[in-house]
Amino acid sequence: MCSWIEVKDSSDFSLQNLPYGVFSTKGTDARIGVAIGDWVFDLKVLAEGGVFDDLEFDLETLKNTTLNAYAALEKTVHQKVRQRLQKLLEKDTQLGHVLKDNKPLHNKAFFPQSGVNMHLPMKIGDYTDFFVGLHHAKTCAGLVRPGQTIEQICPCFYNLPIAYNGRASSVVVSGTPFHRPSGQFPVDGEVISGPCLKLDIEVEFAAFIGRGNEFGCPIDVDHAEDHIFGFVLLNDWSARDIQMYEATLMGPFNGKSFCTTISPWVVPLESLEPFRVAPKETPRKLPKYLTEKREKSAYDIPIRATLELNFEKYRVTDCSTSNVIFSFAQMIAHHTSGGCPLQTGDLIATGTLSGPTRGEAGCLLEQTRGGKEPFEMFAEDSSKGSVQRTFCEDNDTIIFTAHAKSNDGLGNVGFGTCQGKVLPAI
Amino acid sequence: MCSWIEVKDSSDFSLQNLPYGVFSTKGTDARIGVAIGDWVFDLKVLAEGGVFDDLEFDLETLKNTTLNAYAALEKTVHQKVRQRLQKLLEKDTQLGHVLKDNKPLHNKAFFPQSGVNMHLPMKIGDYTDFFVGLHHAKTCAGLVRPGQTIEQICPCFYNLPIAYNGRASSVVVSGTPFHRPSGQFPVDGEVISGPCLKLDIEVEFAAFIGRGNEFGCPIDVDHAEDHIFGFVLLNDWSARDIQMYEATLMGPFNGKSFCTTISPWVVPLESLEPFRVAPKETPRKLPKYLTEKREKSAYDIPIRATLELNFEKYRVTDCSTSNVIFSFAQMIAHHTSGGCPLQTGDLIATGTLSGPTRGEAGCLLEQTRGGKEPFEMFAEDSSKGSVQRTFCEDNDTIIFTAHAKSNDGLGNVGFGTCQGKVLPAI
Repeated sequence: MCSWIEVKDSSDFSLQNLPYGVFSTKGTDARIGVAIGDWVFDLKVLAEGGVFDDLEFDLETLKNTTLNAYAALEKTVHQKVRQRLQKLLEKDTQLGHVLKDNKPLHNKAFFPQSGVNMHLPMKIGDYTDFFVGLHHAKTCAGLVRPGQTIEQICPCFYNLPIAYNGRASSVVVSGTPFHRPSGQFPVDGEVISGPCLKLDIEVEFAAFIGRGNEFGCPIDVDHAEDHIFGFVLLNDWSARDIQMYEATLMGPFNGKSFCTTISPWVVPLESLEPFRVAPKETPRKLPKYLTEKREKSAYDIPIRATLELNFEKYRVTDCSTSNVIFSFAQMIAHHTSGGCPLQTGDLIATGTLSGPTRGEAGCLLEQTRGGKEPFEMFAEDSSKGSVQRTFCEDNDTIIFTAHAKSNDGLGNVGFGTCQGKVLPAI
Repeated sequence: MCSWIEVKDSSDFSLQNLPYGVFSTKGTDARIGVAIGDWVFDLKVLAEGGVFDDLEFDLETLKNTTLNAYAALEKTVHQKVRQRLQKLLEKDTQLGHVLKDNKPLHNKAFFPQSGVNMHLPMKIGDYTDFFVGLHHAKTCAGLVRPGQTIEQICPCFYNLPIAYNGRASSVVVSGTPFHRPSGQFPVDGEVISGPCLKLDIEVEFAAFIGRGNEFGCPIDVDHAEDHIFGFVLLNDWSARDIQMYEATLMGPFNGKSFCTTISPWVVPLESLEPFRVAPKETPRKLPKYLTEKREKSAYDIPIRATLELNFEKYRVTDCSTSNVIFSFAQMIAHHTSGGCPLQTGDLIATGTLSGPTRGEAGCLLEQTRGGKEPFEMFAEDSSKGSVQRTFCEDNDTIIFTAHAKSNDGLGNVGFGTCQGKVLPAI
């Protein structure tokens, strides 16, 4: 599937992808766009240009400053719009007169990505962070309580996707810097109040909810994917010292609520079809409400974390979205099993996606064995050597990227960057 | 302070109170109202009638279907509006021509409370549930881990107000019934999946945020009250079996996210001035960011929980908002201490407000000593005997009321009812 717009092999944004985002150019309002190659095109302009007039949905939903109203439409609408965009953009399009050869519309709709600002794509109602990473759970169990397994610490771990409610108001779009948080935590047995000393990252994958469910009405696991609008990368920044001190009874709170970064492009469910795999198998018998008919309900997409410092890039870790023991469909079914309503714009994350080796650890806590052994991060340019980190330092920029390579020529799929910079504590 | 509108001594809504709510009458849109005596008056009608024209604020904020835009205004605006309403409604008002004797406006603005539907007063962004009840924490520590103190289980308990993020989408207004939630939990050593068997209540007090803070900018404890718009009663319904099984690592999730009920009227901070007390003293040395200049930063308001069944009312418990070890100002200062932004419409609750005796327990878990000893609840009409409960049964209606009696003749202050009915599991 090729486009008349150049899409390099290294680009995240092939015709197979077509992710949605919210962008603005200097001095203009935020509006909805779709990425292809090095470009973003303006869906408001296309809608006003009559490109979707025959598709029978509310075009006003494409003229908002967030994706919520559009995401709340029936899944079939998103599929029709996607098909229309693919037909408009494919190499030998028969709809050349609509966009490709329609210079006025073309010029008005396309912007180089390098010249736009990206905004939070959706107004987030609730944000839920699950804990379904197999290796992360196993490794952290051993670090936090040496000699104990994850089932001993958390007997329900294999039976249901555990989670905590995150802080929706602290979710920011890639590129937003944040100050190192302050809080209370013990140092050498004495509790102090001051800037966090153990600032960590967590490599995660997340879904935005499209259509929600009514209060009191659980979502069936085999229909749960119909409620997913699309996916983003997520960095669940964590202040380990604040978190460890506060979380013994009620779970994470201030240790997580100072900043959560997401990538700006919402990748549609349909884009990821070529990358399906089954979740990791574990010893368990699931209840009916978590038993899926679909086998390949997870995805195998590599996520790389990089440290950027003084214009050099250092490899932090290589994780994968496949390191989960529950799918998003199972997370949604469990989340709503007691009647909890999900709403359009809710964000659901996997938890840390560590692989089995130290080089695949999804957070520094694992990579440094609980902060005891600094980890060596090598520069992409091997002549530049390496840096050591125990936890994040001030002025570190952490960047997540994910680039799923298609084997069948459909085109590669990525998410753009999920990037955040640590500023010194206030 | 008397009004020309009759306010019975038993009424929650004296001239000292004037709480805000969102109401509708049959076939009309929701709008903002204020309660007095047995009446609610329509602020949209008063605004359109010119009553606030000289007060220099955006009158459109009073014409919405939630209180958010109005609550986001400067505190001084809320104070000016409150003063204006008190002047209009006081017995010997010099502004009789504006409302009291202005029959057309009067007739258009006033509705009997018995004939209106109340709605969720604010669009809730994030909901945070703290755990600052002294006796609840002490008692539950002993129940969950016999022989251990709360400091042993949770070393930070006295040093900071611990909390978890609740589920904003499942907060409903008083009068909304809900189905008993289903989930996974162990029974006699075997994990089953089915309707909750240990459905509980939690008596809480909560604040709605008016003005928020910017991302990364903590709120100073001595200015934190400026960010409170007003207060409600809150029932944090809890599925104890689901909660106990899921919460060992990440805190409460499905055990709490099926329903949280709030009272419909948002009682202004100013109304509660006569009822101030200091939080409970505990052995600790607080860090600077939690040290308040104000001594009386909590409130002493009795909250009663009642069980309604077959038109009879049975006394469940008598709690007090005074049973806290941290004030709302301290909760807000801690919540934002790492940079977390609070936003208009965010809801912050105290956690369970148990007193020291069994008859003052704020939840059935405490009242029944962990579900081991059924609790006898006596009918208000003593000829009707009593009922026994271990946990909530289907068709139980639980009602919280709070009625603070003024000693200085200013007028009593209450919240209306915070009521929810348990329907059978689906």
